This record gives sequence, C-alpha cells and structure tokens, in this order.
Amino acid sequence: MSSSDIDGDSVPFTLLVRGASAVLTADGPESSDAGLTLASRAGDAVGIRGHEVAWIGPETALPHGLVTRGTEFLDAEGGLVVPGFVDCHSHVVFAGDRSEEFALRSLDVDAVGITRSGGGIISTVFATRAKDEDALIRLALPRLERLLAHGVTTLEVKSGYGLTLEDELKLLRVVRRLGSLQPVTLVPTFLWMHALPPEWASDRAGFLALGRRTLEAVVREGLAEFADAFVEQGAFTPEEARSFLTEAKRLGLRLRLHVDQLSAGRGAELAAELGAVSADHLECVSPQGIAALARAGVTAVLMPVATLVLRRPTYAPGKALREAGVPVALASNVNPGSAPTENLSLSLGLACLLNGLTPDEALLGVTRWGAQALGRTDVGRLKVGGPADLLVLGCREVAHLSAHLGVRHARAVVKGGRVVLRANDGARCP
Amino acid sequence: MSSSDIDGDSVPFTLLVRGASAVLTADGPESSDAGLTLASRAGDAVGIRGHEVAWIGPETALPHGLVTRGTEFLDAEGGLVVPGFVDCHSHVVFAGDRSEEFALRSLDVDAVGITRSGGGIISTVFATRAKDEDALIRLALPRLERLLAHGVTTLEVKSGYGLTLEDELKLLRVVRRLGSLQPVTLVPTFLWMHALPPEWASDRAGFLALGRRTLEAVVREGLAEFADAFVEQGAFTPEEARSFLTEAKRLGLRLRLHVDQLSAGRGAELAAELGAVSADHLECVSPQGIAALARAGVTAVLMPVATLVLRRPTYAPGKALREAGVPVALASNVNPGSAPTENLSLSLGLACLLNGLTPDEALLGVTRWGAQALGRTDVGRLKVGGPADLLVLGCREVAHLSAHLGVRHARAVVKGGRVVLRANDGARCP
Repeated sequence: MSSSDIDGDSVPFTLLVRGASAVLTADGPESSDAGLTLASRAGDAVGIRGHEVAWIGPETALPHGLVTRGTEFLDAEGGLVVPGFVDCHSHVVFAGDRSEEFALRSLDVDAVGITRSGGGIISTVFATRAKDEDALIRLALPRLERLLAHGVTTLEVKSGYGLTLEDELKLLRVVRRLGSLQPVTLVPTFLWMHALPPEWASDRAGFLALGRRTLEAVVREGLAEFADAFVEQGAFTPEEARSFLTEAKRLGLRLRLHVDQLSAGRGAELAAELGAVSADHLECVSPQGIAALARAGVTAVLMPVATLVLRRPTYAPGKALREAGVPVALASNVNPGSAPTENLSLSLGLACLLNGLTPDEALLGVTRWGAQALGRTDVGRLKVGGPADLLVLGCREVAHLSAHLGVRHARAVVKGGRVVLRANDGARCP
Repeated sequence: MSSSDIDGDSVPFTLLVRGASAVLTADGPESSDAGLTLASRAGDAVGIRGHEVAWIGPETALPHGLVTRGTEFLDAEGGLVVPGFVDCHSHVVFAGDRSEEFALRSLDVDAVGITRSGGGIISTVFATRAKDEDALIRLALPRLERLLAHGVTTLEVKSGYGLTLEDELKLLRVVRRLGSLQPVTLVPTFLWMHALPPEWASDRAGFLALGRRTLEAVVREGLAEFADAFVEQGAFTPEEARSFLTEAKRLGLRLRLHVDQLSAGRGAELAAELGAVSADHLECVSPQGIAALARAGVTAVLMPVATLVLRRPTYAPGKALREAGVPVALASNVNPGSAPTENLSLSLGLACLLNGLTPDEALLGVTRWGAQALGRTDVGRLKVGGPADLLVLGCREVAHLSAHLGVRHARAVVKGGRVVLRANDGARCP
C-alpha cells in the first residue's frame, strides 16, 4: 500500500478495533483537571489505516465502505481501549543481576552496606562494560517483551552503565539497534552523570571532562534525544549537573533529571531553571520545588516501585504536585537495583496507594503525561492522524486498572496499526 | 494407560522435564533452617508417569528404556524447576468489584469511611448473594487462570460471602464445581464468621446459631475441609470463635484463623489453643503469640499484599516467626477488597522487602510451607510417587524469583503430569 493510499479518506481500514466499553483517548482539552482528559469517551471503535488512527467513534456510525473484506477485526469484547503506554524512564539495557542486593535488603543491609558488598550501580557498570552489543541486545529483548506485555509501546532508555566513551556509545547503539528488532519505540537518553566510576574516584573533573567529549561523540552520531544527570548527595552536585547539562542543551539535546530522590537537594528547582522536560523521582521535593516545576512547565515523573524497593520512608507527593498544576507521569524505572521489574501495572496501583494519585491520574501518567515527559504529543493519546498505538484492556473501568494490583490488563497490544501481542493468561475482568 | 502400568518401574515416562539449572524439590529433611530444604538440588530432570513424579535426577543418569517415542519432552532451557505453588489463603469466589474502595484509599478515606460509603466485605456479600452458581463460576474462572499463570497449582478457597445457609452452600458448591472445570486443585474452607451481615446487627447470637446449622449442612454435604473465623475488633471475639470452631472441629473439620491483623488480640494464642493448622495475617502478633504458635506447631500464613493495600503501618514479623521455629507460608489472599490481585509473585517480593523473609524462605512459603498450612505433605514438594505438579521457571536463581518484583516466572506449568500452560510473554531471565 502506498502512502497516498493511506492518506485517502475513502481507503478502507486495515484494522478495526470494535466492541470497546469505551475508547479513552487521553486527548481532551488542556486542563489541570486530569479527569477531563480521560472523560472523552469517544465511542466503542477505532478504525486504523496502515500505521495511523483513521477514525474513532461508535461502530453504529461507521462511515460506509471503510470496512471491507481486507479489514482485520480486533474485538475488545467489552474492555476499554486506551493509548499504548508511554514509559518515560528506564535503564533497560544492562548486564548482570543484582538479586543478591534485594536479598541483602531483606536482612536490613542499607545502601552503603550494599555498595561495600560490591553491589550498586557500579557493579552493573562493570557487568555492562564486559558485554558486547549483541550480548546486551539478547539481554534486553525479553525485558522489552515483558514491558510490551504490560502495554508499553513507547519507552525511554538511558545509558549510564558504560561510563567510558566507548561503552556509552556502545550502549546507545544498542538502544538504536533494539528499536528495529522489536515493536516498542525507544527514546534514547544519554546519562553520563549516573555514578562516579572508581577509576575516577580521585579525579571528578577528569570524569566530567571525559563526559563532555563523550557528549560530543553522542551528538555527532545522533544517538540521544535527551541528556540526564543524577543529582544527589553521593552522586553529583547541582553545580556539576548545571554545567554539563547546559552544554548538552547547547548541543541540541533536551534535558531530564534524577532529582530529590533520597534527599531534598533543590533538584526540582534546578530542573526548572534548566528548562528540563521532566524532573524524575521527587520523593523529597520541597514545596518550593513543586512551585518551581509548575511555573516552568516541567513534567514530574514518579517511580513508586523504587521507593518501595529501597524501602524509603516517603513516597513522592503526587497529589501535591497535581494540585499545583504539575503534570505527573508514572514510569517503571526498570533497572537491576532499585526497580527490578517490568511490571508497569504495579506502578499504577502503587501510585494510587502511596503517591495519592487517582486511578484516572495514574492512567494519564502512563499515557498523555508519560508522552509529555518525553516532549511528545503524538503518542500517549489516540487521535485521528496519530500513530495507531493502542491497548485493548481486559477491564471495563479505569478504577479497576489500578486496583487490580500488579496485574497486566492488556489483552491485545496494537503498535503502529499491527496487533503485536495477544495475551493468553486470563487478562480479562468481567 | 491402566494404573498398574503407571505403577510399573519399567514403564516409560509420559513426560520428561529436562535441561533445568536445578530441580528444587523443597523436600529436604525437616529442619528449622529453611535453606536446607531447598538446597536439595536434585539434578536437572524430572521423569513423569501419568499424574505422578516417577524419577528425579541428572539426565545423564536416566534409567535405560524409560524415554521412548511416546515420551513428551519439556525443555526447561536452563531455568529452575520447582514444585507447583500452593496458595493457602484466598477468597477467590465472589461477585462485584470494589475498585472504588481502592480509589477512596488514594484519597485517604479509612476503613470506617469505606464501609459508610457502602464498601467493605458486606458489599461483596450482597453482590455474591445476587449471583447464581453459574455466574459465580464464570467470574472465578479468569481469576484461577491468572493464579495458574503465576504458578499456583493448589489453592485454598474460602466461603464467607454468602452468610446465609443457602448462599454459603452455593458458594462451596461453586468451589467444588470449579475444581473439575480447570486445572488448579481447590481446597475448600467454610468461613462463617467473616462479617456480621446488617440483618443480624442486633442479634449476634442468632447469626451464630444459624452458623451452627449451616456448619452441619456443610459437613453433611462434605463441602469443606477447613473451618475459619475472622477474629478482630469489629469482627468476632476470641470467645465467639472458640465456641464455633470447637464445634467445627468436633464435626471433623480442621481449623485455620484470621488473627492479629489490625490489632493484637491474642489471636495467635487462640489458634495455638485450638490446634489450628494455620494462623493467618499476624501483622500485630505479640511475642507471646509467636511462642504459642511455635509450641503448638501452627503454620503462620503471611499476606503482605493486604498489608500494603490497607496501608497498615506494620508488616507481619516473618523473620521473628521463622527465628522462633514457626513455618511461614505466603499467600495471595485474593479478595476484592484488601488483596485485589492474583499476582502471587508480588507476595514473594514483598515478603522479602517487608516481612524480612529471605528469597529461599519466600519460595518455601508458597511450596512446602504453603502445603503444610493446608495440612498436606503431598503437594508443595517434588518427590517420587507424589503428584507431578511443577513449574519450569524462566530464571536460574531463587534470589531472582523474589527480586524480579511482581513478574511471573512460570514459563510452563505442569499439573498432574500435564503441561497446562506455556507462557508467551517473555517470562525468561537470562
């Protein structure tokens, strides 16, 4: 089929999704009342031409002639149809396994003890450096498959486990190659300031200078859309991050930051100052930080799984952020230490229980606001002309999606107009 | 194949599970060191004849002539093989949906507020009374399918959402019928003392008298193996439970109790006094209660999902229970209020993070000790002559099973010698 065919309004649908209890577009008018953007229940069917949504409405109002013998059908059987999930924060390309750290936590060993025992981010850096591109791809593919099974059709992926020029390029090349090997769209982020490798322990300036050279190489090769930094006591200071990220921005990358996770460090204020697209974690954000995010239009990204796994005393204040008018995205944060799970569904439930989000807000967090945290308005919503990334859920109500804790509800995943997954394990809630 | 064929030592295997990183039998010698019972890594293959395990060992030592052209193969591809999970506490037969309560909790509404708004156990009682057997079966089947996908091959199921003579019998008949409609073995428990229905609000004695008559009918029809009671402030007193359960025991039922969940009410002591098989919940158990359980040989059943969902301040002291020599089982507690999830894998991870269990202990909690909490030694372990209920996991290490939070790892489920599920969603961890 040529692209001119696809554009024609009279060309039949390639796929018709029908029989939904409702199609939630997450594409309502801009509003601080998150509920409104979901309430746009737009009928029970979605017509798709090629890769794009061509029509949304009640099946009874289907335009004549658009469903033909060549049209494939996908019956939602009374479930909700929602945009494919946008998971805007992950570290999904890595080698090694840090399950032993999880076991140590059960023995009340703290982060310092875990690092002393050879764990922590640096242990993943060593394991990842030791693998070539093909090996990293083999390790990442099942993780992407599990994320897809939870409904993720767009995923941000960070580097930050290489931390040499060659290894960071290797990791970002892996992300690029992975993009064409499986259905999930990957959005690459260059994360140099993730942890200080031991070989640079006595030369922070040297490490940061190497970061600049690596940044230039990353930009030259077009390997990243975003630059990121972990601003925290024991990681990097706001001053170090400001300098590095300002340069990244000058070179054309957009910014996102890990901030205010373990301590209140004016990280949200820094994200606002730098014009970052997102500020991520925020367990310890201050009221001033929340106000700064709101003023600067920065999207907050909450990752309650990491709060749970690290057994932190306080969850990020999702309700306060929302009340201040900050869009709140939710992400899996998949990584081998603090968030060793692709179960994004769990994040939805935890966000309601522990971050004070409503079920509507949780769903928006992995659709519209998840996309906004990546600076995108094409994905994370359903609209005519947009990409046909959507999920047929096994439940009829948004409230159920969060409440049915840690259960994946995607009975079918449509990516770019193609049915790429059908669940076979009872993802159906009467 | 006749049963005499199945018994013959020279009869070929019907199924050979091979290629495991290890077969964990959970059938080691009795010991308070839970680790030992898992450390019995018994080779890499399991030979099955009909419904039973016929042989466990290294494939290189396979007896001659037992693998023929009629033998089916299941390749574990380097994953662990473990006993099918025994989930010893559930309320999986119910009607209605209480997702709205979950949403209310996100708004900080407490249990009293939820009950005032029409929620709570009684709302499920009304919804369940309104459905006939066939409708309840249709609602329960997908839940059992999801539990099976998480590796559950034996499941306890409680009544307690009927609370009239007819409705309790209906519910237990549903459990019996469900047993033959899907692969999971169901163990029925009669739970009369679950909540006081409003029609009995001014006549507790009348409700308990009706419970006695219902108990007799349940026993007459052979519908339950266990009797249970919810001992808690606002539910039932130890005295009420003692009287009722003593009668149940006299009529031949074994006992299990919901105790010390929301307050320390000497419930564990009561379970020990009554010779219960299990004492369940135990978030608020006292040191005296722990000692009583140990002395009486009662198995503790922890359900961390309910602690999480109810946002309780304290998790059950799994580590202290274990150190006192109490076997600790883990259960899903599937119910529409406090544990609205069939994700038993999540319980394994939470038990390590929040109950202080080790990953080995968590696995034993859903195998050997889960079975012991149902008074059984046939399931929950792998041994020659025992039922061929086993899982091929997608991971090689027990530590990974808990750490990979809320991810199901059953790549294949074998129930009674038959492969009843093969996962298609990336349940594989290199």
